Amino acid sequence: MKNVSVLGGYKIVEIKQITSQEKGRLQFFEGENDIPFAIKRIYYITDVKKGVWRGAHSHKNLKQLLFCPFGEILIKLTDGIVSNSILLNEPNKGVLILKPLWRDILWNQDNSVLCVAASDYYDQSDYIRDFEDFTKFQRENKY
Amino acid sequence: MKNVSVLGGYKIVEIKQITSQEKGRLQFFEGENDIPFAIKRIYYITDVKKGVWRGAHSHKNLKQLLFCPFGEILIKLTDGIVSNSILLNEPNKGVLILKPLWRDILWNQDNSVLCVAASDYYDQSDYIRDFEDFTKFQRENKY
Repeated sequence: MKNVSVLGGYKIVEIKQITSQEKGRLQFFEGENDIPFAIKRIYYITDVKKGVWRGAHSHKNLKQLLFCPFGEILIKLTDGIVSNSILLNEPNKGVLILKPLWRDILWNQDNSVLCVAASDYYDQSDYIRDFEDFTKFQRENKY
Repeated sequence: MKNVSVLGGYKIVEIKQITSQEKGRLQFFEGENDIPFAIKRIYYITDVKKGVWRGAHSHKNLKQLLFCPFGEILIKLTDGIVSNSILLNEPNKGVLILKPLWRDILWNQDNSVLCVAASDYYDQSDYIRDFEDFTKFQRENKY
């Protein structure tokens, strides 16, 4: 019997950092070393007002590391049954998404920045943009 | 005779973006496609006050794309003879550094974020942290 009370397929990670008292902090990660994939693509979302939701899709195969170098962003993940919300409110906090999960993303502060390191190039066919298609995909793939 | 009035080894690039009127803008780039190297490492600098300088080093081989998804940062590059300053004040503006150039970086606004996609893993021996060593390196390598 599947344990439906736990959402799998993602990890909250602490990104390595070097803090200097007067000059801020530097965060860093290496593809295949610090995260379980090579970095093929970077994207980042800027100029978003507080209260805006984005996301509303899943991927079939893409793995991603999401992080927020400025501001505060809420990442809501679900497999169609269980939902978890993760607050990205520190630049060294990241969410590794390793399995198909539907994500809704809320901007908690004007101009918060969402950065994403992705495991593959852009591929339109890897996206699921309809929630019912997503739950169907989950059932068929037994996630 | 070398033209000493032009600084080479870097490019100002416009990073691709998708703008949506009410939901901000998404910028993206792919290793080896949009930039001339694979992305091995990401680092980003946060929590820096206005007026702080960072940088003060060169690399021997590392190639990098620098961008600023929030705030305003001044990148000052020199080959030891000619200096150029590039203002990163738009999230879709980037600086590709392709040859050894000494960089000094000024934060023009509190909490501006500097993000860097780098062509290789961290390698202490690739850094030149002394300006005289850098000018010597430049002369020896005829950059």
